[in-house]
Amino acid sequence: MTTVLDRRARLLGPQMTTFYREPVHVARGEGAFLWDTDGRKYLDCYNNVPHVGHCHPRVVDAICQQAATLNTHTRYVHDMILDYGDALTAKFGSDLESMVMVCSGSEANDVALRMAQAMTGKTGIIGTDNTYHGNTTAVSQLNSSKVPVGGYQDHVRQVPAPDNLEPVGGTREGQAEAFAKGVEQAVAELEANGHGVSALIVCPYFANEGFPTLEAGFLHRAIDVVRKAGGLIIADEVQPGFGRIGTHWWGHEKLGFTPDIVTLGKPMGNGHPVAAVVTRQDVLACFQDAFKYFNTFGGNPVSAAAAMAVLSVIEDENLVENARDTGAYAVGLLEELAKRHDVIADVRGSGLFFGAELWRDGKPATDVCSAMVDEMRDRGVLLHSVGRYSNTLKVRPPCVFNRENADQLAEVMDEALGAVT
Amino acid sequence: MTTVLDRRARLLGPQMTTFYREPVHVARGEGAFLWDTDGRKYLDCYNNVPHVGHCHPRVVDAICQQAATLNTHTRYVHDMILDYGDALTAKFGSDLESMVMVCSGSEANDVALRMAQAMTGKTGIIGTDNTYHGNTTAVSQLNSSKVPVGGYQDHVRQVPAPDNLEPVGGTREGQAEAFAKGVEQAVAELEANGHGVSALIVCPYFANEGFPTLEAGFLHRAIDVVRKAGGLIIADEVQPGFGRIGTHWWGHEKLGFTPDIVTLGKPMGNGHPVAAVVTRQDVLACFQDAFKYFNTFGGNPVSAAAAMAVLSVIEDENLVENARDTGAYAVGLLEELAKRHDVIADVRGSGLFFGAELWRDGKPATDVCSAMVDEMRDRGVLLHSVGRYSNTLKVRPPCVFNRENADQLAEVMDEALGAVT
Repeated sequence: MTTVLDRRARLLGPQMTTFYREPVHVARGEGAFLWDTDGRKYLDCYNNVPHVGHCHPRVVDAICQQAATLNTHTRYVHDMILDYGDALTAKFGSDLESMVMVCSGSEANDVALRMAQAMTGKTGIIGTDNTYHGNTTAVSQLNSSKVPVGGYQDHVRQVPAPDNLEPVGGTREGQAEAFAKGVEQAVAELEANGHGVSALIVCPYFANEGFPTLEAGFLHRAIDVVRKAGGLIIADEVQPGFGRIGTHWWGHEKLGFTPDIVTLGKPMGNGHPVAAVVTRQDVLACFQDAFKYFNTFGGNPVSAAAAMAVLSVIEDENLVENARDTGAYAVGLLEELAKRHDVIADVRGSGLFFGAELWRDGKPATDVCSAMVDEMRDRGVLLHSVGRYSNTLKVRPPCVFNRENADQLAEVMDEALGAVT
Repeated sequence: MTTVLDRRARLLGPQMTTFYREPVHVARGEGAFLWDTDGRKYLDCYNNVPHVGHCHPRVVDAICQQAATLNTHTRYVHDMILDYGDALTAKFGSDLESMVMVCSGSEANDVALRMAQAMTGKTGIIGTDNTYHGNTTAVSQLNSSKVPVGGYQDHVRQVPAPDNLEPVGGTREGQAEAFAKGVEQAVAELEANGHGVSALIVCPYFANEGFPTLEAGFLHRAIDVVRKAGGLIIADEVQPGFGRIGTHWWGHEKLGFTPDIVTLGKPMGNGHPVAAVVTRQDVLACFQDAFKYFNTFGGNPVSAAAAMAVLSVIEDENLVENARDTGAYAVGLLEELAKRHDVIADVRGSGLFFGAELWRDGKPATDVCSAMVDEMRDRGVLLHSVGRYSNTLKVRPPCVFNRENADQLAEVMDEALGAVT
């Protein structure tokens, strides 16, 4: 392993870190499982990119068949991107009926921000103070943990993110209003400094913020504030989208609002680099008027075929229902664990995006969480941490995750908690 | 076709244009050929993305095999990205031995600009006044034809681009010095406005500028100016790279300089969305210190496998040599045409990136060039235009393009010139 890590440091840089104390040297994947080069099997409780399961044969076949037939850009006319566009936009049941296909969620958010700026004529952007929306120069201005190269610019405002155990404003009941007040203040600042507000961008599941439990309607007041100031709402559905949260196809549906722009990424092609921005016809036309955007790889027939296969598998294998049912079952198991392990301060989540927040002695148990991530890896279960203090065990597996997998997760978590606390 | 175009306008926006008066509705590709949905065959003289030929079976096999085995991100250790990194960086024969893998040339240039800014502590960027380096918010600041959303910012300077028929400074002989003078002035402006110069970014083949004929050493004076001011040199090899220009693997080798940062894109995966930034270890480490960049899809095993297959095919099928020989043969044919068609004012190029610039009555013949693009499409040969006046027929086919293909190109160009002039 040392040689491999040295080679990695030379080729990919000294700071290309690995997830675990002992890195996982992966060789093969199938369904909810990964195998390392020694043949050891791991239950994958972390990877949302292989949304319909690692190496799903229907997605692989779609890629192979299309790659062997044609792969070119969208200056030529091709049916696959249109078929996919119809299938995808049908999942929104609103006037979100146009799209731009790109290669990554970062590119999608980079386009979305410009759409909002083109549409509103304003430049200010509001996000939360504990988030990540991608890695382009423009989008990295929104990141709260990775300070962008050159520092933050004046057109961005970060508002306090919602949280279960440390709610904005002090109480869970008052959190929606307190969050809206934060947005209100950000709008006032952006108007005062001449930027105005072009958009509020949020993950409607607040995934990086630690996926707090929020009622439908939570964002309504904040959205009102933004819309009254002439701004748009961007829902970054990269993490909650495509049915992962079980109750709905999209995070914004769960929260009961319709965004102006939706961005999609990681799970869209089950690992194939494809992403998209879905929006209204008027927003897309305005963006195209302002900037003749063209993405060479975006929406090529192979990417569209991969994405189409993912949509079909989600439907045919009832993966949204599976996410709902298996997720509820797994959360139940974690709630049982919480009764026996004091370190678990909160169990929460929806569908196949759930977890357990760890506190000890009245403080976020970041160290325990970090030890748990490694301990569980050593016991053959892969997951990771999230949240402002990295003290929440995050479970976000491929959506083929079943009850047997959930049993294994809970059992290993039980043992690991015993070992590290 | 009307229905398809209506559907396209609704889904992809009213300004998602097609290349030709009569769009090509593509269905299949193989080698240097495309077929439309009616079974009509086209000689593809334009697409550089399918670098080793449309649907090359070895690339398709590499993608299929890896997609069926494992596709995950680089927080896990995997050999494929390391094997590719070794193979790729070996092609540079310099201290360019580290890389960041991303999904598109736009992402690559977006990273490259930040690397230069992190490394130099300055923010100014110099490009040419007739170029395109990609479509992210940051990179679109460099574009000369597509004004970025919100307009140009003060840290960018565009210097006069070299040209064969309208050389900078008035003469071909004095062009290198005149170009350097433009860079010198840009440096002075960026120092005066407090940005300083972080980088000069150029395509070392000046592809979008109309691929002027330049001697080795052309950039030396300009590079000296930038380096003396503390800036880096970024070579955008998205178009000339991977042997297309025939004489060398990279455009910067042809011009005889070693850049600090190289960006790669389109041809790298033969259509699979993969791109990269190659740089020195110190530059990468500095960038990682400044910003913990991570790209979920970048360098995944499937992308790395596709890219590795492309490298192998270039070697095994001697495509660099083919580009050199077939390119020279084709340029010879076009020079013959120039003797019989007055509208051809210049024939130029290197390897499989060449073309003919059209002038009439002492003016750039943009209209003739546009008519030629459509006329040749109707006659079964796909190419397009480039240059400041879009008056240069650009030929940039898959690198499996052979003499028979060149004969067909020249023959159809001859007929088409007869028809439109």
